[in-house]
Amino acid sequence: MRFLERFARGELRLNRLEAFSDGVFAIVVTLLVLELKVPVLSEPHSVRELGHGLIELLPKFCSWLISFVIVCKFWLNHHHIIGLARHANYALIWLNSIFLMFQSFIPFPTALLGEYPENPLAVTLFGVVMAFNTLLFIAVHAYILKHLLKAEFVGTQDPHIIRKSFVGVGSYLAGAAVAWLNVEAAFILYALTPLFFIVPPQPQR
Amino acid sequence: MRFLERFARGELRLNRLEAFSDGVFAIVVTLLVLELKVPVLSEPHSVRELGHGLIELLPKFCSWLISFVIVCKFWLNHHHIIGLARHANYALIWLNSIFLMFQSFIPFPTALLGEYPENPLAVTLFGVVMAFNTLLFIAVHAYILKHLLKAEFVGTQDPHIIRKSFVGVGSYLAGAAVAWLNVEAAFILYALTPLFFIVPPQPQR
Amino acid sequence: MRFLERFARGELRLNRLEAFSDGVFAIVVTLLVLELKVPVLSEPHSVRELGHGLIELLPKFCSWLISFVIVCKFWLNHHHIIGLARHANYALIWLNSIFLMFQSFIPFPTALLGEYPENPLAVTLFGVVMAFNTLLFIAVHAYILKHLLKAEFVGTQDPHIIRKSFVGVGSYLAGAAVAWLNVEAAFILYALTPLFFIVPPQPQR
Amino acid sequence: MRFLERFARGELRLNRLEAFSDGVFAIVVTLLVLELKVPVLSEPHSVRELGHGLIELLPKFCSWLISFVIVCKFWLNHHHIIGLARHANYALIWLNSIFLMFQSFIPFPTALLGEYPENPLAVTLFGVVMAFNTLLFIAVHAYILKHLLKAEFVGTQDPHIIRKSFVGVGSYLAGAAVAWLNVEAAFILYALTPLFFIVPPQPQR
Repeated sequence: MRFLERFARGELRLNRLEAFSDGVFAIVVTLLVLELKVPVLSEPHSVRELGHGLIELLPKFCSWLISFVIVCKFWLNHHHIIGLARHANYALIWLNSIFLMFQSFIPFPTALLGEYPENPLAVTLFGVVMAFNTLLFIAVHAYILKHLLKAEFVGTQDPHIIRKSFVGVGSYLAGAAVAWLNVEAAFILYALTPLFFIVPPQPQR
Repeated sequence: MRFLERFARGELRLNRLEAFSDGVFAIVVTLLVLELKVPVLSEPHSVRELGHGLIELLPKFCSWLISFVIVCKFWLNHHHIIGLARHANYALIWLNSIFLMFQSFIPFPTALLGEYPENPLAVTLFGVVMAFNTLLFIAVHAYILKHLLKAEFVGTQDPHIIRKSFVGVGSYLAGAAVAWLNVEAAFILYALTPLFFIVPPQPQR
Repeated sequence: MRFLERFARGELRLNRLEAFSDGVFAIVVTLLVLELKVPVLSEPHSVRELGHGLIELLPKFCSWLISFVIVCKFWLNHHHIIGLARHANYALIWLNSIFLMFQSFIPFPTALLGEYPENPLAVTLFGVVMAFNTLLFIAVHAYILKHLLKAEFVGTQDPHIIRKSFVGVGSYLAGAAVAWLNVEAAFILYALTPLFFIVPPQPQR
Repeated sequence: MRFLERFARGELRLNRLEAFSDGVFAIVVTLLVLELKVPVLSEPHSVRELGHGLIELLPKFCSWLISFVIVCKFWLNHHHIIGLARHANYALIWLNSIFLMFQSFIPFPTALLGEYPENPLAVTLFGVVMAFNTLLFIAVHAYILKHLLKAEFVGTQDPHIIRKSFVGVGSYLAGAAVAWLNVEAAFILYALTPLFFIVPPQPQR
């Protein structure tokens, strides 16, 4: 019990938490492109062969695009919720670190999705990882709302916001389930999910 | 309609947008060098073989140099236009994210250009991607000028600046077209284009 | 002697030291995921084969998780001790650089541990590197306490804090020794060690 | 002429130049470790084979260490000279970008040196690249001293500082020349050179 209490201590500046998080977001988003490997051609001058090679990369382009939009949305919403906190404590820093750990994991399921776009297990895993990331984000959000909300925002937050956020979790999991029936449908669900909450909710006055 | 209006909301601090953007620019620029792979030698001590290996890397060095200068120019001009904005809203953040997405894409066409410098499709793609990046930059610029311009800059901006920016788009597309006739000419056009607007225009008083 | 004195000079701002350090921490933590390579399948659609491939990656997931937590803990404690300093001097900058050098080294022993989880030498090396990183961290901490402590923190720091920090060094080295008898036990020790000092000690009033 | 004058215009904030530079430095320093590839073992459990594999990596460890120290020194001195400037103009930003371009190039000659430590061409190239980087650094430094020096530092700078900085250029080039006679001697020169100016000169009062 005393161990857990120590996490609620500390009044840490938010700027290094933001700098560290922005660094991780920026690197994740940029590493995604490393999966797009230049096709190997038997005939380097052949326009036709290169064209074919690029068309074969199409699933990788799609998974790159989807992941990029998802990570940008996480970044934007992270920006929003950190702006609600009056300072950081150790619990927030560790929740945020665990959230960033699974953000930095995103290049792996993205690569898997791009490499095996028709393998239901690969498509499912992508959705499960995104659902899990959304859950971690909700945990950070809920912690701030409960323990670290700036005085000026008290009473201005939608009381159902956390419950509404689970729509994203559900939508990614639906995609993960649908993948076993139809992988294209799962791709579409994954691409549509980030459109929900693409703009963080405004404070209510 | 109401959906679109929500993007114009929000008064977000510009510092995290800058931090995220600077992170992406810095990583893109640094990842470019990863394409320069150490040549594999059958005789590790052979100066001659290593010399040949390095000369074969010449197209990769060229494409690295050109992309580096182009990304630095985007960074500098980004610095300039963000300095014109009084704050960020969600529309700006998403426009900027889409712009950064295609900035982070640049290592791929750069690798393609370095690997297949005589394949017209590879050379064309480079120009098309750069033209597209310039278009996205223009979109961010135009949005700031129209919706978020700081009061102090009103009336000081060249009214034709957006139209003039299309010179860069045209020049990259010209390179992309010329590639089908002569790849060297396209390289030269790509290297010359960033010299246009290498210094952002000054406010007019 | 005069050479060494020069290092104590300089009143450098801490913000660039923090920015550089945060950059290194963020990149180290994100590069760790690059070791998780997509398994190569003979039959791209096979759920079973992909499942087996992912299970074989389990040691890599474990070493990724352990290293991520360790680097986050270093980041958090770094945040804490830099907050104790009134400014930076050249000695601090070089101590910090050497510390960061071995932080940026962490992806290598992590990859080794993930690739050869049953090779005692690989498991030992991981522990030795982490013990060495902890030593370097202690050196930075001790230097700040002795030479650069902010006036407001004088007398509030636990006088035994440096001695207590050696528990981490000892624990990593114990894991490194145990690896020659039982590699699983070493993994467990490595995973438990970061739980010590997971929250930096509070000032005593 | 009027084209060149435009570069002297602009009063840009230094914070984004610093953020971009710190990002590049942090990434360069961290990418260096990617060259340290896990050795491939025919017998994964063999301590002996892994030991041999690690000993064969020794030249890579050396080149990694040397490059890390060199880049940290560039970072520290960059920190110092940017602190002398009252603001940035376009000339400074472009000089700085060209300097960063060749900083981000450092992983390539480092990899070359680590891969072919006994090939005189590889060893020479490392020294030439470092000499060139030092020249670019001197250019940035000289530009700031001449055009952008803060009022408070006028008259406090060593008037021979630029000339003294050429010692580093000469030392790297000496290493590059010596490489053709004795590669070990070149390694030692490269390792010793960063010790010169390891602490930036203090203002003279």
